Amino acid sequence: MSRADRLLDALAERELDALLVTEAVNVRWLTGFTGTAGLAVVGSELRGFVTDFRYVERAAAEVGDSFDHHRAPRELVEALPDVLPADRPLRLGFDDAHVSVRAHARLRELLDDRVELVAAGGAVECERAVKEPGEVRRIAAAAQLADEVARAVLGRGLVGRTEHDVARSLDAEMRARGAEPSFTPIVAAGAHGAQPHAEPRMATIPRGALVVLDWGAELEGYCSDCTRTLATGELDEEATATYELVRRAQLAGLEAVRPGPTGREVDAAARGVIDAAGRGEHFGHGLGHGVGLEVHEEPRLSKRGDDALRDGHVVTVEPGVYLPGRLGVRIEDLVVVREAGPRVLSSLPKDLTRVD
Amino acid sequence: MSRADRLLDALAERELDALLVTEAVNVRWLTGFTGTAGLAVVGSELRGFVTDFRYVERAAAEVGDSFDHHRAPRELVEALPDVLPADRPLRLGFDDAHVSVRAHARLRELLDDRVELVAAGGAVECERAVKEPGEVRRIAAAAQLADEVARAVLGRGLVGRTEHDVARSLDAEMRARGAEPSFTPIVAAGAHGAQPHAEPRMATIPRGALVVLDWGAELEGYCSDCTRTLATGELDEEATATYELVRRAQLAGLEAVRPGPTGREVDAAARGVIDAAGRGEHFGHGLGHGVGLEVHEEPRLSKRGDDALRDGHVVTVEPGVYLPGRLGVRIEDLVVVREAGPRVLSSLPKDLTRVD
Repeated sequence: MSRADRLLDALAERELDALLVTEAVNVRWLTGFTGTAGLAVVGSELRGFVTDFRYVERAAAEVGDSFDHHRAPRELVEALPDVLPADRPLRLGFDDAHVSVRAHARLRELLDDRVELVAAGGAVECERAVKEPGEVRRIAAAAQLADEVARAVLGRGLVGRTEHDVARSLDAEMRARGAEPSFTPIVAAGAHGAQPHAEPRMATIPRGALVVLDWGAELEGYCSDCTRTLATGELDEEATATYELVRRAQLAGLEAVRPGPTGREVDAAARGVIDAAGRGEHFGHGLGHGVGLEVHEEPRLSKRGDDALRDGHVVTVEPGVYLPGRLGVRIEDLVVVREAGPRVLSSLPKDLTRVD
Repeated sequence: MSRADRLLDALAERELDALLVTEAVNVRWLTGFTGTAGLAVVGSELRGFVTDFRYVERAAAEVGDSFDHHRAPRELVEALPDVLPADRPLRLGFDDAHVSVRAHARLRELLDDRVELVAAGGAVECERAVKEPGEVRRIAAAAQLADEVARAVLGRGLVGRTEHDVARSLDAEMRARGAEPSFTPIVAAGAHGAQPHAEPRMATIPRGALVVLDWGAELEGYCSDCTRTLATGELDEEATATYELVRRAQLAGLEAVRPGPTGREVDAAARGVIDAAGRGEHFGHGLGHGVGLEVHEEPRLSKRGDDALRDGHVVTVEPGVYLPGRLGVRIEDLVVVREAGPRVLSSLPKDLTRVD
């Protein structure tokens, strides 16, 4: 089934005649177009693609003839009156989660009164979250590359290097293998690890500390995401106990990953372990998120995750405990949700690993 | 004058009591905060900054005490009722060019009825476009680094290398010098150069072609942007003539850059040269754009550039002529707008330069 066809159920559910797709990553998923100026319209008998003069050639090559191509005079949306059927009223879904207040006003100005603009944000993201086998292969390839990179970088040791230097090595090794970082790598030692989104510092990594490494690769457009927390020598009791707590929570989260439960329920499976240990207030983020063309996408595994996990979702499972001024631990796997049980794409060990 | 103080005139002009700043780059310019979750509110006696638990420490270090700090429970905007004065009606500007339809509805839901939300998109961008001397120094440093990188990469020759390999060298050399590319470099030989936003291919660069190089560095948050078109050996008459035409247009554009004229007028100065040569239809983009924290920002030098250039603007001047299936030429300098005459930050020669 084409990706456009996969959207038709979502259109029917929302009683839409057509869906206007404007976010670049959604346009890419739907049409294959990798440029920055493209939009698409999908309806049961409608496949419209609009770009501007800069991308006409690329669009012809990438989008092909499953869509009718239109070239916009200036703004892309100015082509919409040509793309949409003019002979009848139309309920047109638009991406209210991304379309700005100003862009919405511009749409309203350009479109015939018979076109009703209906908030439909999330429709594409929801379907995009369910990966085709070819997409899972690409994500797995990115994850494998990222793991190889970490092995290479950790092989050179941690103690005495700066966080910044280790982060730069992760970055450089990914690029040397033909990938890019899917986000700026995090390398955070000791108390700095208590910041979930720590920026690598010029500070030297000491012996006897926990070091949080959070990195991912982007390869052929698809992302990976992984976190490991390593020990640079002997740890004190608090650090060891915190590590083991997070590891148990991570395994509990993994076990809950299957089609059916909501993101909230999977989050709760891991969170319960941390709550029971009296560390609930130190796990201040969600358990995980979808990964694909974006490194953060649907579904959300968190207290706000209302949607049920589906076969083909690819999600992270990444509980953390952060003790301000002392230490942080996070352990994250990338996982394919399957009826047969989760397939973990991350290959690095999760037993407390010592890297000096 | 603080940057927050610089916004007060814009508030007065729009009869606003306060301005809500939500775009990350605007928040950064205004407060110094480099995280991804921050918002600020500015009024004549109001300096509020909101972040979430992940960034509390970073905000304390980067934003400092010129703003009152608030920690949001979940969504940043949930803190707004605490930030805004509760004792009187308030006209609050918001960034309608970026705030989504959904986020706007959420704001409306959270705020007291006495808060009037007023579209004020562009207010920060307009002021941000006028650079302080320290900002010009940073942009100049990024431009200098990018020029050094190009000299190093071109020193290894072009003929026989792939576009992709040359682009990757530009990327790697920037990173080796502690910068990042401000956008993915463009390297486009021969007919491929007719695509203004060409993606580097695995194709080998031939002898006797024009090669468009468009690259920039980001250093300490500030961007540069430069384009040169080089010759890999003897060119035919059409290529030489097109190059000379674009060069003349570029010089005409540069000459028009000074405080006073609108972006449209400066654009027209260069466009007139290309129009007069009968190539107007092959120059399908604007003459230039502002550069700073973003590689594309205000002001716009184009047919739609209504705003007047101001002392302290930093803009590109980059006319191009694109002959589909044959060749493309673009020449781009980065320029500081000054009363005393433009200061060109790009140092590479613009005479037709041969690199084999």
